Amino acid sequence: MVNPERYFKSLYNLQQTRIEKILKNTLNERKPSSLYAPGAYILNNPGKRLRPLLVIFSANAVRGNYKNAYNAAAAVEILHNFTLVHDDIMDNADKRRGLLTVHKKYDVNTAILVGDSLLSIAYELLLKDLTTQVKDVVTTFNNCVIRVCEGQSLDKEFELRKSVSIEEYLDMITKKTAAMTEMSCKIGAQIAGGSNAEIKGLSNYGKYLGIAFQIQDDLLDITGDENDFGKVIGGDLLEGKKTFVFLHALRLAKGKQKQELLGIIKNKGIKPYKIPHFRRIYENLGVLDLSRAEVRNYLKKAIDSLHSITNPMGKEMLVVLANSLLNRAK
Amino acid sequence: MVNPERYFKSLYNLQQTRIEKILKNTLNERKPSSLYAPGAYILNNPGKRLRPLLVIFSANAVRGNYKNAYNAAAAVEILHNFTLVHDDIMDNADKRRGLLTVHKKYDVNTAILVGDSLLSIAYELLLKDLTTQVKDVVTTFNNCVIRVCEGQSLDKEFELRKSVSIEEYLDMITKKTAAMTEMSCKIGAQIAGGSNAEIKGLSNYGKYLGIAFQIQDDLLDITGDENDFGKVIGGDLLEGKKTFVFLHALRLAKGKQKQELLGIIKNKGIKPYKIPHFRRIYENLGVLDLSRAEVRNYLKKAIDSLHSITNPMGKEMLVVLANSLLNRAK
Repeated sequence: MVNPERYFKSLYNLQQTRIEKILKNTLNERKPSSLYAPGAYILNNPGKRLRPLLVIFSANAVRGNYKNAYNAAAAVEILHNFTLVHDDIMDNADKRRGLLTVHKKYDVNTAILVGDSLLSIAYELLLKDLTTQVKDVVTTFNNCVIRVCEGQSLDKEFELRKSVSIEEYLDMITKKTAAMTEMSCKIGAQIAGGSNAEIKGLSNYGKYLGIAFQIQDDLLDITGDENDFGKVIGGDLLEGKKTFVFLHALRLAKGKQKQELLGIIKNKGIKPYKIPHFRRIYENLGVLDLSRAEVRNYLKKAIDSLHSITNPMGKEMLVVLANSLLNRAK
Repeated sequence: MVNPERYFKSLYNLQQTRIEKILKNTLNERKPSSLYAPGAYILNNPGKRLRPLLVIFSANAVRGNYKNAYNAAAAVEILHNFTLVHDDIMDNADKRRGLLTVHKKYDVNTAILVGDSLLSIAYELLLKDLTTQVKDVVTTFNNCVIRVCEGQSLDKEFELRKSVSIEEYLDMITKKTAAMTEMSCKIGAQIAGGSNAEIKGLSNYGKYLGIAFQIQDDLLDITGDENDFGKVIGGDLLEGKKTFVFLHALRLAKGKQKQELLGIIKNKGIKPYKIPHFRRIYENLGVLDLSRAEVRNYLKKAIDSLHSITNPMGKEMLVVLANSLLNRAK
């Protein structure tokens, strides 16, 4: 019998290789190089390539021909990179996956234009192999772009606001992060000719997976290992970000602890030596355990959404993928 | 008998009103307002709305039902505004059509995100009424976005280069400016079910019209009336821009005049009091007359491209439109 975890890993590696190849070829030989060399710089910096994998696995889960989904899968990764380039300008971020961000390596003008260009190249790849369902697939993809912009706008707005509710936070990450994993699964199912029930189920799987992923990200910021995570531990506290963990801490804290947490908002961050102190506050308030439970809760919702999927191995791969996120360190 | 010029004006006004209405309604009631209020700010600042008119007139020219083209026409105008918002950041422009640019009224981050968002809203409107030819129309629209990014990249690259040939300049404006008028005509014809010959003819009409429009813009910068033109006369000289007029002057000048023109590149512009001096150099070299002749030449090419159009009044409207550009003051 096939071991699902081992099968998943070999499939993941195989698909990653194929996606990398498309990503490498897409910007090759395009002119002017003042535009496409910086585009290739960000695209060739390898990430997890999680979103294209969701497209392929979803196409496979509805027993469809997932060969037609490769260019769409690469399109989703390029769309993701468009958001990274523009978000990094807005966040004034110096590094991304260990390399200089596009606007630091080149300049802000180049990064704006490279982002715009990547978005248009993403649509080109999406359209490439589409024969049927063109309007549905492009609409799904484009609605995602609209929502991601709305989510990013909310995120920047929350940075300036005194208070943000947990509901508002969840709405924001549903748009900024989960809209893209939801769309990835949905277009995979649409391209491969899934039934309405399958498309709906896979969309929900992607949405809940995305929410779990973001809460996990907020958690790893304070509990992760710096070498594994690839970012400074406690970075969100340093910047005074209103994360899932922070907002729950603020909700539960009383007296002096509450004042200290409010001080983070007021001062727009803390000094590095204070990170262990706030980590202890988080632990005492139980918000790390609470957040871990929420990650498990959303992953369970994701897996439960797969009840309409009848392809057993296709479904199993999505379950393994969801569970692998629970144990991720980066 | 109908007077074509008067009929054109009444049609233009009628279509403008309809386009304005769609543009006004599109961002209404969308949230968050931190994103859509700045988007509405730029969209509601009325421009010529030339590009949407090209969509409608092209649909009409192939005897198609142009009612299906209104949302696509508005999509083209929104796409145009996306490019204005991002270009204004890159050019560090303070004003646009008499109002503060988005990044000056709000900030650069907002303007980046508003541009991204307008682009995604443009695709939404484009898709709205499409029933047939979906892949063809979206591909035409998207190829235009790709080319506009390439053209803008070349334009920024040329600012830094010591020398640019007239051929390179024409390639740049064919991408940056003419790709959008070409696309506007092409999707109008595609949506209305035009024949391949009609689609090709209208595409060429739009392309040559766009090139003429840009050369005219370069001319008006030095020959226009400040009140009509809405920009500072001689602004391109102040910034040392390598325009059609400037590059031809550089080609024809000799001796001291050539050194003076090369000095503009070297010093990245001139002082305002020098503008009349360089205008005289342009006149002596004959490059203003040469540029006027090129505008007429490209407009003739545009009109000649309409030979496949059999709808007489539809064709006449496009001819009147082309000739009206010849006499424009802004």
